[in-house]
Amino acid sequence: MPPKNKNKSKAKRGWQDAAREAQEHRDASISHALANTIEQDVAARITALDPTSIARMTAAGELSAVQVVSAFLRQAATAQQATNCITELLGARALRRAQTLDASPPAASPTARPLLGVPVSVKSHIGIAGGRMAAGYAAWWFANPPAPRDALVVQILEHAGAVAHARTTEPQSMMQLECASNLFGETRNPHRGSELSSGGSSGGEAALLALGGSALGVGSDVGGSVRVPAAACGIFGLKPTAFRVPTTGWSSTPPGADPVPTVVRPMCRTIDGVELFMAVMLAAEPWTVEPAMVPLPWRSIDLRLSDRPLRIGIAWHDGTVQPHPPIARALAQLAATVRALPGVEVVEFPLYNADEAWAIASSLYFTDGGAADVAAMAASGEPPLPLVDWILRESPGTKVLTREELEYWLEEREEYRLEYADYWNRTGRWDDGLGRWAGTVDVLVCPVAPGIATRHGTAKYWAYSAMWNLLDYPALAFPAGTASKKVDVKEQRTSFMSDHDRSNWDLYDADLFDRMSVGLQMVGRRFDDEKVVAVYRYLKE
Amino acid sequence: MPPKNKNKSKAKRGWQDAAREAQEHRDASISHALANTIEQDVAARITALDPTSIARMTAAGELSAVQVVSAFLRQAATAQQATNCITELLGARALRRAQTLDASPPAASPTARPLLGVPVSVKSHIGIAGGRMAAGYAAWWFANPPAPRDALVVQILEHAGAVAHARTTEPQSMMQLECASNLFGETRNPHRGSELSSGGSSGGEAALLALGGSALGVGSDVGGSVRVPAAACGIFGLKPTAFRVPTTGWSSTPPGADPVPTVVRPMCRTIDGVELFMAVMLAAEPWTVEPAMVPLPWRSIDLRLSDRPLRIGIAWHDGTVQPHPPIARALAQLAATVRALPGVEVVEFPLYNADEAWAIASSLYFTDGGAADVAAMAASGEPPLPLVDWILRESPGTKVLTREELEYWLEEREEYRLEYADYWNRTGRWDDGLGRWAGTVDVLVCPVAPGIATRHGTAKYWAYSAMWNLLDYPALAFPAGTASKKVDVKEQRTSFMSDHDRSNWDLYDADLFDRMSVGLQMVGRRFDDEKVVAVYRYLKE
Repeated sequence: MPPKNKNKSKAKRGWQDAAREAQEHRDASISHALANTIEQDVAARITALDPTSIARMTAAGELSAVQVVSAFLRQAATAQQATNCITELLGARALRRAQTLDASPPAASPTARPLLGVPVSVKSHIGIAGGRMAAGYAAWWFANPPAPRDALVVQILEHAGAVAHARTTEPQSMMQLECASNLFGETRNPHRGSELSSGGSSGGEAALLALGGSALGVGSDVGGSVRVPAAACGIFGLKPTAFRVPTTGWSSTPPGADPVPTVVRPMCRTIDGVELFMAVMLAAEPWTVEPAMVPLPWRSIDLRLSDRPLRIGIAWHDGTVQPHPPIARALAQLAATVRALPGVEVVEFPLYNADEAWAIASSLYFTDGGAADVAAMAASGEPPLPLVDWILRESPGTKVLTREELEYWLEEREEYRLEYADYWNRTGRWDDGLGRWAGTVDVLVCPVAPGIATRHGTAKYWAYSAMWNLLDYPALAFPAGTASKKVDVKEQRTSFMSDHDRSNWDLYDADLFDRMSVGLQMVGRRFDDEKVVAVYRYLKE
Repeated sequence: MPPKNKNKSKAKRGWQDAAREAQEHRDASISHALANTIEQDVAARITALDPTSIARMTAAGELSAVQVVSAFLRQAATAQQATNCITELLGARALRRAQTLDASPPAASPTARPLLGVPVSVKSHIGIAGGRMAAGYAAWWFANPPAPRDALVVQILEHAGAVAHARTTEPQSMMQLECASNLFGETRNPHRGSELSSGGSSGGEAALLALGGSALGVGSDVGGSVRVPAAACGIFGLKPTAFRVPTTGWSSTPPGADPVPTVVRPMCRTIDGVELFMAVMLAAEPWTVEPAMVPLPWRSIDLRLSDRPLRIGIAWHDGTVQPHPPIARALAQLAATVRALPGVEVVEFPLYNADEAWAIASSLYFTDGGAADVAAMAASGEPPLPLVDWILRESPGTKVLTREELEYWLEEREEYRLEYADYWNRTGRWDDGLGRWAGTVDVLVCPVAPGIATRHGTAKYWAYSAMWNLLDYPALAFPAGTASKKVDVKEQRTSFMSDHDRSNWDLYDADLFDRMSVGLQMVGRRFDDEKVVAVYRYLKE
């Protein structure tokens, strides 16, 4: 769901004013953060570490939290120059907190502060006390009040020893699979930024993490906004099942009221960091504050103890758009590797009715036909960017719904979820007398998107990622290989599955994507977040 | 949410036709079921048993399933004569199944069939293969197709050894806290039926169970429909957290699409039976079929192992309506008894903003302003019964909502849930640095309704029960004493908290309720179903 703004701007000020003010604020925060700097080679060594190593070394006194934070602040400034991923560095706050951590007595138990000294970056619509939350709209930069306190997710991370040090970009309307706004401009891909987008909407997070400017990132996903940029930038991103990570303190609708729930989720360069985030989050029992959450702790799974074969489904494509050659090859390689493992079975798993998933999801994203978004742009006179213009004006799902239509689509959503559960069950074998199947596919692997990354302004195909939001299935984007212009050639195609397929094919350019990381997505059934992470780890080992 | 009917009647037939046909069908099913009867004293001995004892004795060969089912069929027919609680007896089906169970070899493990031979009654909108589902509307008796298969909840119970033997009444529109329809007439209270209602909407279940015509009952609750009749008839009824018991196969909206979810729930004369139902249900892992469910097993709790005091909140009233004297006295007795127990603390727990809860819930029950219900009545020409007329025409919450208004109320619902979580947290003590409170109240006890039972056609105050539906908190109705005209006198009152309070006071009559069971309600936080049951058991012991 697009964010909502309950406050009206008092006097109309132009979007150029907001952009100037926002960027000046950002630049000042960067200058300020670099005042206490650290040598570049030291910074490089520290920012190469993952969250687990940072916490271990900080707890052991091998690094101070101040050193770690200074290194990441420095690297974040570099990442900003390369990709334009930052809206604000939290230098003073982060260093003050790091000093407090360094001055604190050691924790009683080594697991008491599992994130000790770990710098955490936060997508800008997730509240940081005193910070502005504009959801990518210039008018809201002026109109929205600063966050009164940190979002609950930030409170929990810092309680575990983390240090919030950076806030990152988000696109106009939040509803883009890229990351461009009139407030901050375009966030570029860390690898081929002049031509390619970082992906979005959590593109700032992905770019910053990929370049070592943060150790752990907090973003959100309602249609692919974590997985698409994670894949485009070559890192990990988990979209958990909804109502497992708290959303209290963000600039959006209360979570239980959304037709398609937006999920707060971790991004990281390592799978360890992703799992650590989830474990920390759920150990804090945030459901006592946020009753929409389900009180499930993080249930670690060790698949080496399982007594039955692991079944991996492979979905080559979604029946509408063929993925680009590097993605098809990464999938084939993964299938071949996994098939050769003992105790693992590979099953073909065609995705079920992706067009229907998109029809339902896109009808539920803007129930007002985009009126709130149009008004937000009109308030400052800012122009819609190409992808916003597309989704508001050209995407057939975007229309004003009556109450009857809204109720119709909510029922369609439930019917689709029921059909998918049945479809998933039918890939297994009959096992009991209850009409239920046992021994179904554990997880499936499919593309995150039909390409690795998009040229700026061209990310118009959401079905690969949004299907799992509609279903509320957990999905992990992970790096699965490297594109090669020699192997991943663009062969001639004369027949296409759809117009989308043809446009996507036109976007492929073997040279452009050469040597970029290729992301895939591992998907589990609802609430099987732990299984998704465990299967990834098991196969990786 | 009121049920919806997707099928149109082909030719208009009058409601009197439907009523005649429905009642003839019922009467024939009763005659048929009584063909294989059993002696009355044997029947009385068997129908006094609870589910655990029945299953144990059937497994041990001390009773045959056929004996048990015959006894309950006979007693159900007697209960029907007394209270008008039956829509259909499933004689042939139940006896056939009992014979099959008797002929089966003993189960490999004593826990394999925990409900062996236990007769189960089912509210009529929950599907039984081949049975009609009319939701209390005459037109739908003709128009709705028979259920193609048993509802999932029935499948699971029978898989555990139970035997569905009876279907029970439900009121016109399903949205009454009594149980009257033009199809089957009025279900009467087992104790003072000429004047008092069984309560509703699951009034048929409550009356049948109270009179020993069933061992375990399956009903549903969106505003009090299990707890109000359970209290009125003197039995137990648990409204679990939504999405823990499957609803697949009922005649209503898919559960995830409802603004206030309707919950399928157990009713029984014993707490053991309630817990056994939940344990059986969740051991079957129904979430693989119904993805809206949360995959939480039944997590038994033994409070004797707890190392901290148990905190019980007591809510004397809801700030709007004072409960009748027997209820106030039962609450006071419970508080005094519990306060004297070691390791138990009692805390005053005023209910939070009950009027707001009712304003939100009642605005979300009929989003079409009752148009579907009016059309359902018009289709057969049946008149609205008094409580349907009241809720459709006089309840201020019932109005046609626009999409914007629906979205507004959904957000209000989430805000209220957040406020309540905060309110609950604040009854405890500050404990950590995360803005969260530990050591909060474990459960609270409050009235189920402002009276024990209502004179036919007068149940218009829902807030005591509907508040917990809106919040989605588990709530257990339990018998908590007996009314006495000597003690529970109607004193003079000159001041009232509200008009509702005055009308409720007018309804009290010490003679009328003399010697009736008094029900109270134990409420836990969302997903604390196990804790509610465990605390009740602990205090009882």
